[in-house]
Amino acid sequence: MARGRFITLEGGEGTGKSTLARGLDGSLRARGLEVVLTREPGGAPGADAIRALLVSGESGRWSAHEEALLFAAARLNHLTHTIRPALARGAWVICDRYFDSTRAYQVGGGGLDGAILDQLNTQIGADAPDLTLLLDIDPAAGLARSRGAHVGEDRFEKKGESFHARVRQEFLAIAAREPGRCKIIGAHQSAEAVLAAALRLVEALA
Amino acid sequence: MARGRFITLEGGEGTGKSTLARGLDGSLRARGLEVVLTREPGGAPGADAIRALLVSGESGRWSAHEEALLFAAARLNHLTHTIRPALARGAWVICDRYFDSTRAYQVGGGGLDGAILDQLNTQIGADAPDLTLLLDIDPAAGLARSRGAHVGEDRFEKKGESFHARVRQEFLAIAAREPGRCKIIGAHQSAEAVLAAALRLVEALA
Repeated sequence: MARGRFITLEGGEGTGKSTLARGLDGSLRARGLEVVLTREPGGAPGADAIRALLVSGESGRWSAHEEALLFAAARLNHLTHTIRPALARGAWVICDRYFDSTRAYQVGGGGLDGAILDQLNTQIGADAPDLTLLLDIDPAAGLARSRGAHVGEDRFEKKGESFHARVRQEFLAIAAREPGRCKIIGAHQSAEAVLAAALRLVEALA
Repeated sequence: MARGRFITLEGGEGTGKSTLARGLDGSLRARGLEVVLTREPGGAPGADAIRALLVSGESGRWSAHEEALLFAAARLNHLTHTIRPALARGAWVICDRYFDSTRAYQVGGGGLDGAILDQLNTQIGADAPDLTLLLDIDPAAGLARSRGAHVGEDRFEKKGESFHARVRQEFLAIAAREPGRCKIIGAHQSAEAVLAAALRLVEALA
């Protein structure tokens, strides 16, 4: 059985990652592929329990370093129980947020030393995605879309404007450093246009 | 204000760490010292939320590496919010379990690569205790004492006999490597005798 493909969707708040994930899921299933649609933090029972600690409560509840450690624990659990078994049996995995979000939010937004995140990702042997779709939009427009949509899971949304501006800059810096893996899609477009752009990039993996 | 002292109590299940902690707390307070009695995992609001994930549920719920990452997140939160401020204002901190337990349980018992734990402790800048009291007893005797005492918090107690034998061996190995910091007290003695032995060792810190 050929290994599946690992596709991650990244971007700030309100960029339409979840909508795109559902669209890709439907399109790939229609071609007869097994698709595993998942997300971070979460995606396995242990990781979901850690998610509850990360996304709820006051925005200052955890330091960026504490967050990175919790994300690493959740990611290892997610890789072990969901992502690696799916890829091994030939499934295509679509993951809504992955390690680029940790870099954008905890290093870019939160000021954590990037070397600490590198060390954690190396420790857990975090699989690199085959393709990362970065949905990019002005943070003010994204936050206007997302506010109220994630009641009780809005801990990161509550961070200030300058935090979200730094998150966007870090996402764009990652895409500039890894242009082979990371493709930027303008998230100001309609959901249909975003899906069409994504499918053109996904074709190349088949 | 002189920095306080950091004393950790270590050992397997049912070795009497909590009883000794209360005894030391009372004795040091009687001398007019400010004492902060705390424990791991936990000891601060964030760390207590992580504790609930670690000590409850099925024994196989987390891998040893996932546990080490969760302990590191909890420890950083505990150091930041409880231990470091207390030491800075001159208080004596008595902590029921600390990083030696992570080495004994996750490396010794769980088979985690010790270099991973070293990396995590270095990352978070984990403060070294001034004194560690290791309460040592045959694991079968300790487990017989502790069974039923921690309803709902017995995830590690439920691990098998050979796990607890490896935990004890790792604790003893730590004490052999660091005889200046770690002092072994036989936990088969009465609580009064254990406290008296501990106080003789604590005197040296004053």
